[in-house]
Amino acid sequence: MAGNLNVTVWNEFIHERRAGGKPMEIYPAGIHVALASHFSAQAGITARTATLDESEHGLTREVLDRTDVLFWWGHLAHDKVEDAVVKRVQDAVLDGMGLVVLHSGHAAKVFKNLLGTSCGLKWREADEREILWNVAPHHPITQGVAEHIEIDRHEMYGERHDIPEPDQLIFISWFQGGNVFRSGCTFERGLGRIFYFSPGHETYPIYHRADILRILTNAARWTGEYSARAREGNGRRPDLRKTVNQNVPLA
Amino acid sequence: MAGNLNVTVWNEFIHERRAGGKPMEIYPAGIHVALASHFSAQAGITARTATLDESEHGLTREVLDRTDVLFWWGHLAHDKVEDAVVKRVQDAVLDGMGLVVLHSGHAAKVFKNLLGTSCGLKWREADEREILWNVAPHHPITQGVAEHIEIDRHEMYGERHDIPEPDQLIFISWFQGGNVFRSGCTFERGLGRIFYFSPGHETYPIYHRADILRILTNAARWTGEYSARAREGNGRRPDLRKTVNQNVPLA
Amino acid sequence: MAGNLNVTVWNEFIHERRAGGKPMEIYPAGIHVALASHFSAQAGITARTATLDESEHGLTREVLDRTDVLFWWGHLAHDKVEDAVVKRVQDAVLDGMGLVVLHSGHAAKVFKNLLGTSCGLKWREADEREILWNVAPHHPITQGVAEHIEIDRHEMYGERHDIPEPDQLIFISWFQGGNVFRSGCTFERGLGRIFYFSPGHETYPIYHRADILRILTNAARWTGEYSARAREGNGRRPDLRKTVNQNVPLA
Amino acid sequence: MAGNLNVTVWNEFIHERRAGGKPMEIYPAGIHVALASHFSAQAGITARTATLDESEHGLTREVLDRTDVLFWWGHLAHDKVEDAVVKRVQDAVLDGMGLVVLHSGHAAKVFKNLLGTSCGLKWREADEREILWNVAPHHPITQGVAEHIEIDRHEMYGERHDIPEPDQLIFISWFQGGNVFRSGCTFERGLGRIFYFSPGHETYPIYHRADILRILTNAARWTGEYSARAREGNGRRPDLRKTVNQNVPLA
Repeated sequence: MAGNLNVTVWNEFIHERRAGGKPMEIYPAGIHVALASHFSAQAGITARTATLDESEHGLTREVLDRTDVLFWWGHLAHDKVEDAVVKRVQDAVLDGMGLVVLHSGHAAKVFKNLLGTSCGLKWREADEREILWNVAPHHPITQGVAEHIEIDRHEMYGERHDIPEPDQLIFISWFQGGNVFRSGCTFERGLGRIFYFSPGHETYPIYHRADILRILTNAARWTGEYSARAREGNGRRPDLRKTVNQNVPLA
Repeated sequence: MAGNLNVTVWNEFIHERRAGGKPMEIYPAGIHVALASHFSAQAGITARTATLDESEHGLTREVLDRTDVLFWWGHLAHDKVEDAVVKRVQDAVLDGMGLVVLHSGHAAKVFKNLLGTSCGLKWREADEREILWNVAPHHPITQGVAEHIEIDRHEMYGERHDIPEPDQLIFISWFQGGNVFRSGCTFERGLGRIFYFSPGHETYPIYHRADILRILTNAARWTGEYSARAREGNGRRPDLRKTVNQNVPLA
Repeated sequence: MAGNLNVTVWNEFIHERRAGGKPMEIYPAGIHVALASHFSAQAGITARTATLDESEHGLTREVLDRTDVLFWWGHLAHDKVEDAVVKRVQDAVLDGMGLVVLHSGHAAKVFKNLLGTSCGLKWREADEREILWNVAPHHPITQGVAEHIEIDRHEMYGERHDIPEPDQLIFISWFQGGNVFRSGCTFERGLGRIFYFSPGHETYPIYHRADILRILTNAARWTGEYSARAREGNGRRPDLRKTVNQNVPLA
Repeated sequence: MAGNLNVTVWNEFIHERRAGGKPMEIYPAGIHVALASHFSAQAGITARTATLDESEHGLTREVLDRTDVLFWWGHLAHDKVEDAVVKRVQDAVLDGMGLVVLHSGHAAKVFKNLLGTSCGLKWREADEREILWNVAPHHPITQGVAEHIEIDRHEMYGERHDIPEPDQLIFISWFQGGNVFRSGCTFERGLGRIFYFSPGHETYPIYHRADILRILTNAARWTGEYSARAREGNGRRPDLRKTVNQNVPLA
């Protein structure tokens, strides 16, 4: 697999800084640090983090040009993300950067702008059992992943999720209270691969589970494959988009 | 909608003839007659039936050429269906006939030959509650259909269903015992539209429900749309397949 | 088919007002009027027009709520279309309005926002012969349409077109100079159907051709089908989007 | 990439044995040997061949269980391929073996059975120029492949090709005589990836071109990825299909 994979984990990082809350207890350094630490421990992966509070939310052009996959976790502050940065992330995806959108990131501007829909859904916080069924056992994202995964208690996310028909449906979730959800979906936009994965409410230690981390690591490798190859040589992903619209002469 | 829609409901018709059984009690004249009677009562639809015991299983070339949609219910006798008839049905679909495959028809030769996969799945007879979630509320098949449909007790059909990625996913089912299923799926093969719909185990009165019949009537109209138009004029669907493979001159 | 179909043809209406130009000669009252007149002459269709110069570009909420299909022709003034109107059109599509994007509308904000990509392509103005191949002869859009359509001279639009993989590819174009193009493509966003159709450069009388008008009329009926049904009764398409994102109780 | 990739190139091997013909001149040892020699020279690939004349056409269960990708070239003898071997190949694909179908293999039983359609097309032998346009520059199959590829003279294959809508369209071909063709398409069936690639008429030295061989090598790696991983350890791909259809207890 093409050399080194550069992962950037973005997090709004609000829940985990509220004193005395569950998120702080579960992810004392933040969800981004928990995920990035895990990724960095994997062969061939280098991970860094970026958060809302940083200048340009930590997502400068320089950072994005060297990022093969961007993970996105947001919830309370979707509308605080600057439109210029949203546009920059969208352009990077069209140029070939992978994007993994987690949980409540379903309502993030970067996701909605790439899919074109509202991305609305049903939800309920009721400590329900969730079972994810793996419907694509041959997909790179599910290698080493069981036929189904049980999560004891989780927030319910339910259909209808207002997304375009996914390119490929990877997981379907069952919830104790009677709902179902397309919890793992792939999309492509421009040269970039996108994976949406719904588990990961901030009040449960879901990103500490080995099976979930296996899925996310697989997703990093799969969505970042193109960019890692494109960056070979000079370290930056070339800006292919300037050649996308062209007046061409007769051959 | 192009004139009259001709529906043929095919049933192996074995369960319902066993004295003292639930299927006989629920469908005394057979599932095919229950469905065909309902369809015939709808504006613009003419329905007939065909069964395994008839000569050529009731599916002669003459019958298929005038059929816009074929419904298929089978379970115990998939391997008793003659290959020549299976081929004739497959050819009719490629020529534009609609096909609606019901419940255990998932393992019928006509379905497996059109999809190319094993169509295997998980199942369990445990009188479970099933909830079908409508994930395509804009699709012609779901017009007049609620956001979700509850079936008190049903056989469980669960993932992974070994089918190709559907063109469009219409319903996802939740089962009390923890399983999910892609219970309404569309496919296209050649000029024909195919709809697979899983509800309808023979021991429950599912095909007497108004909501289920609404879905099946919608499916008849949607899958049969092309054929009904193609039959206008002389009543038979033209044999387009002879022009599918052609040596053509330079223009 | 559900009662009356309301079509609105939007045009930036700039080329056709330039004195002495080909567009004025071919479409003296504008492309929008040429198309709307044709549509209004079809059974069950009522067509109106809207242009850039009108207040809110002629696309008020009132107009969109009663529009089943919006046709979009733009070229020189994509960036003059107000973002608020773009958002309103996008929301109407998510709510079920059909959208047919014509020719240089590939770079319109409404199209790019719904697809999420740059929609860039190759082009060349060289009076080339174009042949459109119908690869979906069973689709409602191609009913009554030949296996291929020849356009003597046209602007070339060529791949790679930066669009997401279409739901269904309807036409592929061949150009004399050696290029190909996915010239008829369907997409779905929210409850709305979208059809992109590339023929229609302003300097050729393409929208006066019977075969092209047949395709566009079919496209109007197909993309507008859901909305026309949803408007039955009170004439306006209900605002379904307020129910898209919901906190739901345990059943 | 998971260890070693085992490629088997199957060829009916008839054209190339006819004395004095072009195919013999271009491929003296047969198309299969030309391709297998190239593949074996690539890092991490081991290639072998199999032909129609061998016992069981060289495709025993033992061979297929150790094959990660099967290439298929056939033309004159499609109906001489035994149904039992066709079924065995189909089952291997459902179990995860990759399949690359070349040129006139579009009418091979293995391809038609997996796709469910007639796979008919238009053709013409007229020494025409063909240009393949790469419409998926981010796909693993097109890495290192230019925006377009020109073939001076080739047999024309034209639309409509009677295949199901591909999962992803990779190449579209332009032909001098006015036709277009979906010349590179991906499909999935069961756990197996399929790639159809149309260049390769036996009277032209197409499989000696570096650009074409690059595409085929990429296709081998991409379609064989799952199987190569699944074979790790004991060298054979596990027989997963016995678990596809199961009666499961309540959890």
